[in-house]
Amino acid sequence: MNVTVRGRTQHYRTVAFNRARNAVLLIEQRRLPHEFKIVATKDFRETAGAIRDMIVRGAGAIGATAAYGLAQGALAFRGSDLKKFARYVETVYQTLKAARPTAVDPVNAMNEVRAAMRAGQTVEERQSLALAAAEEFANEDVRHCEAIGKHGAKLIRNGMKILTHCNAGWLAFVDIGTATAPMYAAQAQGKKFHVFCDETRPRSQGATLTAWELAQQKIPHQIIADNAAGHLMQRGGIDLVIVGSDRVLGHTGEVANKIGTYTKAVLAARHKIPFYVAIPLSTIDWNLKRGFDIPIEDRHENEVLGAWGVNLRGKREYVRVANPTSGACNPGFDVTPAELITGIIMPTGIFRPQELWGRRRELGYID
Amino acid sequence: MNVTVRGRTQHYRTVAFNRARNAVLLIEQRRLPHEFKIVATKDFRETAGAIRDMIVRGAGAIGATAAYGLAQGALAFRGSDLKKFARYVETVYQTLKAARPTAVDPVNAMNEVRAAMRAGQTVEERQSLALAAAEEFANEDVRHCEAIGKHGAKLIRNGMKILTHCNAGWLAFVDIGTATAPMYAAQAQGKKFHVFCDETRPRSQGATLTAWELAQQKIPHQIIADNAAGHLMQRGGIDLVIVGSDRVLGHTGEVANKIGTYTKAVLAARHKIPFYVAIPLSTIDWNLKRGFDIPIEDRHENEVLGAWGVNLRGKREYVRVANPTSGACNPGFDVTPAELITGIIMPTGIFRPQELWGRRRELGYID
Repeated sequence: MNVTVRGRTQHYRTVAFNRARNAVLLIEQRRLPHEFKIVATKDFRETAGAIRDMIVRGAGAIGATAAYGLAQGALAFRGSDLKKFARYVETVYQTLKAARPTAVDPVNAMNEVRAAMRAGQTVEERQSLALAAAEEFANEDVRHCEAIGKHGAKLIRNGMKILTHCNAGWLAFVDIGTATAPMYAAQAQGKKFHVFCDETRPRSQGATLTAWELAQQKIPHQIIADNAAGHLMQRGGIDLVIVGSDRVLGHTGEVANKIGTYTKAVLAARHKIPFYVAIPLSTIDWNLKRGFDIPIEDRHENEVLGAWGVNLRGKREYVRVANPTSGACNPGFDVTPAELITGIIMPTGIFRPQELWGRRRELGYID
Repeated sequence: MNVTVRGRTQHYRTVAFNRARNAVLLIEQRRLPHEFKIVATKDFRETAGAIRDMIVRGAGAIGATAAYGLAQGALAFRGSDLKKFARYVETVYQTLKAARPTAVDPVNAMNEVRAAMRAGQTVEERQSLALAAAEEFANEDVRHCEAIGKHGAKLIRNGMKILTHCNAGWLAFVDIGTATAPMYAAQAQGKKFHVFCDETRPRSQGATLTAWELAQQKIPHQIIADNAAGHLMQRGGIDLVIVGSDRVLGHTGEVANKIGTYTKAVLAARHKIPFYVAIPLSTIDWNLKRGFDIPIEDRHENEVLGAWGVNLRGKREYVRVANPTSGACNPGFDVTPAELITGIIMPTGIFRPQELWGRRRELGYID
């Protein structure tokens, strides 16, 4: 999407590749929203480090980064020995995989790149195929998000007030995003609307990343405390909720997403406000049979006990907010049952969560 | 309640009076939880300043502070002319009233002190009566909180997990508090339980004040992000919710309290978890007929856009968390309908919110 730096507006992807420098270009997301900076990784180890250290985060974005990282590693190989090349590529693959060991997107993305490489007869051919496959992976991510936007934009009418939680925006993908895609598409159609961003404690991705995205795209918005959405809904101040997801169960339509999503879904149901979840097909888990079995990460208590921000002298700093002798409990995700979800917005259309299993063949399920 | 400073445990009230120094003694709440300090105001103007600058906050606490402040002002008067004394006391009254112009508690408290003074025939007598009335106001606040604790403790069983929101603890009253009173009473009865404190963004009174109180009282507790309660309830992790209130409508049983309370009540109802509101009788508003008409304060957006805490060098600091070019919407309170409230815990017993109007005579309603 567009970013304006020192008055100059330019299009950026979250993840891109520079062939001449054999570098993966990443928006340094840890500096946002206070500073916009592009990082160019000089080799696949630096790319793995960028995934590990969360310079780049978000399912689509780390998938594309790993795909580019694998191509970057392959391209750096010197020589024509296919066996040595294969061993080298395996090292690259394992290094990138180990950067976020629980994430499935980097592995899926790299498997696509690796499969494409097999068609090559020489090292050079395989190198070219690797890069082409990585580019195709990134482009497909963008096309999927565009398709989500096309379907989702139909839900947005002039004057609507839309709530979103956390960041499922273009920073989490290669471009456009999922929960934000309908907003960007509706804006392009000339629709006027207002977005409320839950700040999304404890990591505040709504206040930092989503608000930054919407500000760059000049979409009218306000940040609210996570406590405020219920009151706004009660007073008729919210017409539509759109969030992303980390995992949607194909069997049940249950949605795992950032902690607090379930609460917003309960509130939306009480107030009869439509609640949508926007995802690419890769987010559907066709194996797990019940949401209760989705592992909920227990994150470090310091996230809850304080906050990261920029002090009055412009320096990034962590402040301890909470009582120094108290601890915290910090579940990272929650699970929303299908009954609370109006629809799942996917590249292929909008479906009720209960429909997924019945439509599994068209949604990419493989026996 | 007890506070341990440098290994020494001592009983403190939030508000007290030192006759020898003619000073109101206040816990400096703006420094908590990072520093415990008692402020002694040297005259009624300083006492008004302490109310205005929120060194002391909370309904019961500012009521007692104003009552003591009026006595403090009266005691400082030199001379025996009753007319001059009356004019002087009026200045004191108006100064204290102006410190928090929208609060009703200081006015109610000072009216009690002023009514008591009328029985005196001399300046000296009236001065003594003023102090006695202020002391009685503070002691009555404590007795009411004790009674709330006695009734509320019956709701707490061994092994329970209790959720509370914001701070309706002893720091908001002269001692003991309202939402916390059942916990302190249950602890005194030897019951074991665990408390989850909502951090209560944007001002984080749960993470700072309630967590500090519970830590001082050695009650096992953890702070959670406001987003986490829904997930905990869904997984069976919360058995009881107790909150305080800023205003309960006698006509409808609706409860105005810190933003986010309504959300917790909606979640509790969905999960069939009892939801109680603990208040002194003075919190009941017998006039207003519907919760929709309760004015909801729109607070400054900087509360949402950042956080106050202590940095790694121990210095208190505000950090901007949110995107610098985004604004916020910051409603301070919300209104919970009676249907979501299991009971109102009062000094005279526990009542369903719908019962208040029918029991108005015994609950202090005056035609």
